[in-house]
Amino acid sequence: MSVEQREALIKAAFEGKHTDGWWRNLTQPLAAKQHTYSPYSKFPVGAALLAADGSIFKGANIENASYGGTICAERTAIVKAVSDGNKSFIALAVVTDVPLAISPCGMCRQVIREFCAADMPILLVPGDYPKPPGDDQEGKPGITAGGVKETSIGELLPDSFGPEQLELPRTGGCVVQPP
Amino acid sequence: MSVEQREALIKAAFEGKHTDGWWRNLTQPLAAKQHTYSPYSKFPVGAALLAADGSIFKGANIENASYGGTICAERTAIVKAVSDGNKSFIALAVVTDVPLAISPCGMCRQVIREFCAADMPILLVPGDYPKPPGDDQEGKPGITAGGVKETSIGELLPDSFGPEQLELPRTGGCVVQPP
Amino acid sequence: MSVEQREALIKAAFEGKHTDGWWRNLTQPLAAKQHTYSPYSKFPVGAALLAADGSIFKGANIENASYGGTICAERTAIVKAVSDGNKSFIALAVVTDVPLAISPCGMCRQVIREFCAADMPILLVPGDYPKPPGDDQEGKPGITAGGVKETSIGELLPDSFGPEQLELPRTGGCVVQPP
Amino acid sequence: MSVEQREALIKAAFEGKHTDGWWRNLTQPLAAKQHTYSPYSKFPVGAALLAADGSIFKGANIENASYGGTICAERTAIVKAVSDGNKSFIALAVVTDVPLAISPCGMCRQVIREFCAADMPILLVPGDYPKPPGDDQEGKPGITAGGVKETSIGELLPDSFGPEQLELPRTGGCVVQPP
Ligand SMILES: [Zn+2]
Ligand SMILES: [Zn+2]
Ligand SMILES: [Zn+2]
Ligand SMILES: [Zn+2]
Repeated sequence: MSVEQREALIKAAFEGKHTDGWWRNLTQPLAAKQHTYSPYSKFPVGAALLAADGSIFKGANIENASYGGTICAERTAIVKAVSDGNKSFIALAVVTDVPLAISPCGMCRQVIREFCAADMPILLVPGDYPKPPGDDQEGKPGITAGGVKETSIGELLPDSFGPEQLELPRTGGCVVQPP
Repeated sequence: MSVEQREALIKAAFEGKHTDGWWRNLTQPLAAKQHTYSPYSKFPVGAALLAADGSIFKGANIENASYGGTICAERTAIVKAVSDGNKSFIALAVVTDVPLAISPCGMCRQVIREFCAADMPILLVPGDYPKPPGDDQEGKPGITAGGVKETSIGELLPDSFGPEQLELPRTGGCVVQPP
Repeated sequence: MSVEQREALIKAAFEGKHTDGWWRNLTQPLAAKQHTYSPYSKFPVGAALLAADGSIFKGANIENASYGGTICAERTAIVKAVSDGNKSFIALAVVTDVPLAISPCGMCRQVIREFCAADMPILLVPGDYPKPPGDDQEGKPGITAGGVKETSIGELLPDSFGPEQLELPRTGGCVVQPP
Repeated sequence: MSVEQREALIKAAFEGKHTDGWWRNLTQPLAAKQHTYSPYSKFPVGAALLAADGSIFKGANIENASYGGTICAERTAIVKAVSDGNKSFIALAVVTDVPLAISPCGMCRQVIREFCAADMPILLVPGDYPKPPGDDQEGKPGITAGGVKETSIGELLPDSFGPEQLELPRTGGCVVQPP
């Protein structure tokens, strides 16, 4: 991933979330459309997924009155891309309104793991990106320019469950059939 | 919804699914990209959502090795649209590979209900659309031209749970706080 | 279901939720244990499922900081029962803190539909049960003694998706294999 | 956790799954009841959760025709325990029919993380437990007696998302209200 691609991906993650943040305030007119739908948690999240062909898919968290129906920003970006025929990815960026690098939840990690390489860069972007040099996050493990934490699904979901496990031989046992 | 919009929406639902079906065989070259990701159920589903501004959002079902991580075609189409800033919709179409009108699952009905009017048309399209005149589905309740079943979230999720319920006054009670 | 079973089931639904309500205030000492875990929605729900062998399984809603990880009271009761080897049920009761009969969400309806007969009684119990005679709910469709709404999964999830649909013949199509 | 508690917990995980396995074959008559409901994946899983008061909660995976409605064995055990008023846990065991230690999916890790300490022992039990001395798993990282892999949610979900993140100060932004 080039420096330009990295910057474009982070910008797209902010645009995915589409609430007031660094990028929009500085460079874009206030848009009429809201992207995140997070009236219950009031915790807006944006994500952006860079596909192998260079296209970027933006996601936001879309909540539901029945909380279990919520789909996070990362999963929104992934189902957008996959349902458009993309299954090869270069990098993922995630941003919230919180001034820290916030990690994906376990559900998103499971969905990322289905489609992304173990070492694909995942950029966790603080809501106040870019943090200035000398910020208190500087020098912490994995923190890179602007306060971004760089990680991967191999790090976030070690010893993961995936398609391979379903193919393993069984020791026996019986399962009930559907009615 | 005009006749042209209806036909475009059904076409988009087939394209969303992107497996061999009526429309693609007749009118489009075989595309290289797959849209549905349904290796576990082998039950491909496509959906298309018509927004108030005329744009159409296509979805497909995206499954996961941990089956609970699956996101259906209808929800994929909705999170695509909402995360692009659209929250006003005209109609939804759903198509499978099964030669019958197949209904959305309860999870999708809950997500549809968050964003769509109770009487918004939902078109359940048989995989062998258009069924010829005289087909055995003809004359069944709600079946219209080509074997499409027309319904709505008001019909599919009667007496629904939604945002309004969360706002109702409570009778009392105490809830545990997070750790 | 006898009158005694009905009353026991409603009592169990209140106990499942285990926040201050009619039954506990009148008849039980304040228990030390909380059952619902709903710190995010602050919307406690209890459920109770009556199995064919007479046993009752109580559920409460168990939420998660990642809202999509939430499991409702109805689903908690069902997975409790099924994972104890019960797959034949007589009735389900649901109660909230709201002074009205509140319906299950679409996700729960889908899970209920997998295990319960279309006409199995589902009792939606107001948080202020029993409502006195002459209450404004009296005479509304499906409202029975004490303000309970009686319904069924056949009514709540009409034209449902279920195991049968997965077994239908396909019209063709190709699906991508897992990596 | 004592050696006796460990053995009881592993036994309970096999019982939770309730398909033919080591323990049942050797020590119990074939029970009439099935616990797992995994007709779609044909991948039965059992879990057992040891609470602080010494009680053990057994879970099995409960699937759904709409795959996204599936609830895994680990989550079943947890919602059972929590909805019975237990929120303090000592250890969790998980077993499948596969002759290897299989890890929880990301969804379960997220739910485990809500209720369990970062260093609470999680025992991943092979379906052919106990593996004999000299088995090819012996000596691998984390593998202990009988081929069990011992891990924890701190290891399985590093840098996790949880209740604390929701409480962090926000950088600003606006969220759309529910309709
Ligand atoms: Zn997530
Ligand atoms: Zn669905
Ligand atoms: Zn529910
Ligand atoms: Zn799981």
